[in-house]
Amino acid sequence: MNVTRGSLNPAGYTIGVDFGTLSGRAVVVRVADGAEMGTAVHEYRDAVIEQALPGGGPELPPDWALQNPQDWLDVLRIAVPQAVRASGVDPAEVIGIATDFTACTFVPTLRDGTPLCEAPGLAARPHAWPKLWKHHAAQAQADRITDLAHERAEKWIGRYGGRISSEWQFAKALQVLEEDPATYNRADRFIEAADWIVWRLCGRETRNACTAGYKGIYQDGAYPSTDYLGALNPRFADFAQTRLEHPLSALGTKVGTLTPLAAEWTGLPPGIAVAAGNVDAHVTAPAVGAIGEGRLLAIMGTSTCLVVNATVLADVPGICGVVDGGIIAGAYGYEAGQSAVGDIFSWWTSMTSSAHERLSQACADQPVGAHGLLALDWMGGNRSVLVDHNLSGVIAGLTLATRPEDVYRALMEATAFGTRVIVEAFETAGIPVTDFVVAGGLKQNDMLMRIYADVLRRPISIAASDQAPAVGSAIHAAVAAGAYPDVATAADAMARVLTNAYRPDPARADAYDVLFTEYRTLHDHFAGRGAGSDPLAHRLRRIRNVARTARTGEGPA
Amino acid sequence: MNVTRGSLNPAGYTIGVDFGTLSGRAVVVRVADGAEMGTAVHEYRDAVIEQALPGGGPELPPDWALQNPQDWLDVLRIAVPQAVRASGVDPAEVIGIATDFTACTFVPTLRDGTPLCEAPGLAARPHAWPKLWKHHAAQAQADRITDLAHERAEKWIGRYGGRISSEWQFAKALQVLEEDPATYNRADRFIEAADWIVWRLCGRETRNACTAGYKGIYQDGAYPSTDYLGALNPRFADFAQTRLEHPLSALGTKVGTLTPLAAEWTGLPPGIAVAAGNVDAHVTAPAVGAIGEGRLLAIMGTSTCLVVNATVLADVPGICGVVDGGIIAGAYGYEAGQSAVGDIFSWWTSMTSSAHERLSQACADQPVGAHGLLALDWMGGNRSVLVDHNLSGVIAGLTLATRPEDVYRALMEATAFGTRVIVEAFETAGIPVTDFVVAGGLKQNDMLMRIYADVLRRPISIAASDQAPAVGSAIHAAVAAGAYPDVATAADAMARVLTNAYRPDPARADAYDVLFTEYRTLHDHFAGRGAGSDPLAHRLRRIRNVARTARTGEGPA
Repeated sequence: MNVTRGSLNPAGYTIGVDFGTLSGRAVVVRVADGAEMGTAVHEYRDAVIEQALPGGGPELPPDWALQNPQDWLDVLRIAVPQAVRASGVDPAEVIGIATDFTACTFVPTLRDGTPLCEAPGLAARPHAWPKLWKHHAAQAQADRITDLAHERAEKWIGRYGGRISSEWQFAKALQVLEEDPATYNRADRFIEAADWIVWRLCGRETRNACTAGYKGIYQDGAYPSTDYLGALNPRFADFAQTRLEHPLSALGTKVGTLTPLAAEWTGLPPGIAVAAGNVDAHVTAPAVGAIGEGRLLAIMGTSTCLVVNATVLADVPGICGVVDGGIIAGAYGYEAGQSAVGDIFSWWTSMTSSAHERLSQACADQPVGAHGLLALDWMGGNRSVLVDHNLSGVIAGLTLATRPEDVYRALMEATAFGTRVIVEAFETAGIPVTDFVVAGGLKQNDMLMRIYADVLRRPISIAASDQAPAVGSAIHAAVAAGAYPDVATAADAMARVLTNAYRPDPARADAYDVLFTEYRTLHDHFAGRGAGSDPLAHRLRRIRNVARTARTGEGPA
Repeated sequence: MNVTRGSLNPAGYTIGVDFGTLSGRAVVVRVADGAEMGTAVHEYRDAVIEQALPGGGPELPPDWALQNPQDWLDVLRIAVPQAVRASGVDPAEVIGIATDFTACTFVPTLRDGTPLCEAPGLAARPHAWPKLWKHHAAQAQADRITDLAHERAEKWIGRYGGRISSEWQFAKALQVLEEDPATYNRADRFIEAADWIVWRLCGRETRNACTAGYKGIYQDGAYPSTDYLGALNPRFADFAQTRLEHPLSALGTKVGTLTPLAAEWTGLPPGIAVAAGNVDAHVTAPAVGAIGEGRLLAIMGTSTCLVVNATVLADVPGICGVVDGGIIAGAYGYEAGQSAVGDIFSWWTSMTSSAHERLSQACADQPVGAHGLLALDWMGGNRSVLVDHNLSGVIAGLTLATRPEDVYRALMEATAFGTRVIVEAFETAGIPVTDFVVAGGLKQNDMLMRIYADVLRRPISIAASDQAPAVGSAIHAAVAAGAYPDVATAADAMARVLTNAYRPDPARADAYDVLFTEYRTLHDHFAGRGAGSDPLAHRLRRIRNVARTARTGEGPA
C-alpha cells in the first residue's frame, strides 16, 4: 500500500472547515500536495438542543434536535485562527476557504440571513431555531410528502429511492408551517446551514448543488411544483418559489470573497476565495480520490454514509438520492446509508460491559461462521435499502456457549452484509461499484476492515487523513481559489489514501458468500416487504409504545 | 396462600434419598405430616466423568458422560447417617427408605449386580461404566431407533411424541453393542441406576414402572419386539429378553427389606421397607400434591421437566413420553421438558457480567411488552414439542436503547411461552391442564413466577420444600412401609405446597396473549417444520461445525 500524492505544485494553503454534529474542525492544507499543516477543533457550547431552548422554557417534544447558529460562528472565530497558528503558516499565504456541513440542517432566516431565533421576539419559539439533521419530528409530514408524490406519480420520487426522509427540507419546513404558522410567515428564507455559513463568510446568499439535490428535491432544474406543494397544504404552494429558489452553485465554485468581518473572525486575509457549501460526506470523496465511477466511498462512524459517482442516471430503489453534480460537477452522485454501524458495536460493549479492545481481540481470528450466529444490523432501523426506521435488530443462532465476542463479531459482519445489500442494489440498477474506500473513525478498526473486504469481495482503500471531510473542503477551496481547474484535478494532486490497504481473502470471501445468502433470506423475512405488510418489528414496536404509554413512569424512559 | 398438611397421624419416620447429577441428598421425614426433620448432601467425588476415566487413560470422545457407582454408594454411607444425626430422630423409629435417581442413567452389570466397571479387566473400558442421563453420544443409534419405528409403524413410537431420545436405554445399550461388543457381551444385565441402587439396598433385582416406561420403551406390557430389535441390529434382537426383562414394580411398592450390609452403610435398622426406584422429577409429584388429573408439575432449574397425570391415554406430539403408572399407579403419567431454562438466565448474566439480582430488580415492574423484544428460548435446543437439539436461540426487536435487563426479562418470558406451547399441546391432545405447580430452584424467583402465572393464565402453587424430590421419595417409603395404603393417600397427608401462591393478573395475561401469538409465529418460522425442512439453525450449525473443524485450534473450543 502506498500513499498517493500529487505531482503539480501550485503555491499556498487553503482552509477547510468541517461542521459536525457536536463540534467544528478547521484544517490548514498545502495546496501543492494536500499535506495537513495544522488543525483545531471547537466543541459547540449548546451542542444538540434536545431538551429545552438555550434560554430555558418548556421541554421540547420528543425527536426534536436543534442547534445554535452562534456555535457555528464560534468555529470560525476560534478553531480557524487556532488551526492557522498550529500550522505555522503565514495567514497571508492562505488563498481560500471552504466549508462542509451536516445536512439537512435547515435554518429559517430573515432576508439578510439573520437566523429567526435571533430576530426580535422569536428567541423563545422552538420553530425559529435551526433544525439539525437528526430532528426526527416531521415524520408525519414526510409520509404525506412521499405518499402524495407516488399518488401524483411525481418523477422525482424515484430519484430518492421512492421515499422522502423526515430529515429533509420539505418535511422540516412543512412542520414549521403547520405547527407554528406565525414563525413560518416571519421566515423570508429557509436555507441549509451549509449555505448559511457561506453567506456569513462572503456576504452573499448562495445555494449549492449538493444539498439542493439531496435534501431539497431539486431535480432536472426544478423544485417540486407549486401544484404539488399546494396539494400538500395550500399555504405551502409557494414555499420553493419564495423561500428556497436561488441559482445553484456547482461544488468547488468560488461564490464570493471573504468579507472584512469574516476576515476579522478568522484572522485570514479579506478577499480570499470562498467556495460553495458542501455536505460532510460528499465533500470527502475528493479527499480520498473516490471520484471516479465505481469508487464507493463509505464514511464509517456511528452510522455509515455511502456515496458513489456514475456516468449514468438510474433510479435505485431504497437509496437516499441521486443528484446531478451532487458529489462532483459532471457526474451523477448517488448516496445511500446505514442508520447505525459503530453505534451498534458501542451498544454491544455497553450491553456486555466489555471494552471494544477485549472483544475484538477475542474474536479477531475466528474462522468465518465459527460462532454459528447471524444478525440483522437494524438496531437503529434501516436507512438503505429498506428505508424503515421502525425495523429493529435480530440475533439468531444463540446457544449457551455463545460468548460476548461471538455476538460482537456477528454484529460487525451484519453491518458488512448490510453494506453488501446496498452495493448489490446499485449493481442491479446498473451503477457499477468496483472499489471501496473508507473514511471516518471506523477505518482504524483492522478486524472490521478485513471483514468488509471479505464480505464485499473488493479491495478496500483507506483515507490517510483522520479529518478527511475538512481536507475535502480544503480541496474545494483550492479549486475556488483557482489553484486547480477543477475538483478532479485538485483531488489528483491533493488526495491522500492508502490504496488497496485490504484485499479480500478468497477462502473467507467464499465462506461469507454462504452466510450472506442466509443474511439476505433473514433480511427479506424480517423486512416484511410487500403491500400492506406489517413486519414483526412494527408489531413489537406498537406493543412497546402502547405498554409504555399505558403505564408511564413505570416503564423505561 | 396456605401450607396444606395431612390429618392422619401414622407413627415414625422415613428416609428419602435423591440422587442428582452432581450430588446425592438424604432427608428424614415425619410420616404423620411430611415435616422435614433433617437433611444432608454428599457431593460425588468423580462427579460427571466427561474427560477421562477415573483411573486415567485416553480422552473420552465428545458428548460422553459417565458416573462412578461408588459415588452413589457413598451417598448411602455418608449422607444418610448425617441426615439422621441432623434430624435428632432415633434410627429405630425409621420405618422405610426410598430413592429417586436421574434417568436414564444406565448401568451394565454382572448377574449379581456388580457394575461392569468393577468386574475384572473392565475398569479401563469406557463402555463398562454407567452412562449418565446426559451422555449424548448415541444420537446415531437413537435416530435409527426412531426411523425404524416409524418405518415399521411400531405402535409405541406415538407414546414418545414420535421420537426416541439418545439419552434413553435402547440408544445407550445399542451404542455399547456396536462400539464395544466384547463389553456388551460381558453385561448380563443393563439396569437403570434407579433400580441398581434399590438392588444394593435390599439385595433383590427389581425394575420400576417409571423408568421402564419412560426410558425403556415398555408399553402395553411389553418391550419392543425381538423382530424390531433384530432389524436394528441382528445381535441386538435378544437385548430386552436377556438383559432387560423383569417383572415391574409399581411406584410405592415395597420391593424388599434393608440388608444387614446396607443397614451398616446407612445406620438404619435392617429389615425396614425398601421401596421401588423412581425418577427425580416424577417422584416429586406427591411431595407437592400434584397427582390429580390436570395438575401440571414443573421442576424448574437449569432445565424444566414437566409431568402431569391424566385418566386418558393419548399420543401427544413432541412430548417425552406417556407411561401407565409412570407417576402414580392407576393414572397415565405424561412427561415433557424444556432443555434450558435457568441455564438461559445464567448465560445472559454471564454475557452481560450482571448479577441476577440487579437484572431482576431493573425489569421486575416493566409493563408487559415495554421492552419491545421477543425471544426464542432455544439456546439449549428444544426438547418439547419440537424435539430438536440443533435449534438455537433468537432475540428480535433489539434497538440501541435495549438494555441487559430488557433482554433478561424477554428471555424469562420466552421460557414461559415455551411452557405454554407444551401446555397447549397437551390440551390439544385432550389432556387437561388446570393448575401449575412449581418445584426446583427457580420457584424462588418471584418475577419469573408472576410471568408464568400471567403467560399460562393459571394459578401457580409452589413446593414448600427446597428438596421436594427427596421428600417425594420419603412419601413413597411411607407407602412401602405400610403407613399409608397408597401414594395418593400418603401425599394427601405429607405433601407441603403453597397453594395458588401466584394468580394471573387479567390485564397482564391479556397483554401476554398478544405476545404469545407473536412467539408462536416466530417459533413456527424458525422451527422449520415439515418434510425435508432445513431450518436456519441447522444450516448455521453446519456452517459452524465446518468452520471449527477446518481450522481447529484457531476457533473457540
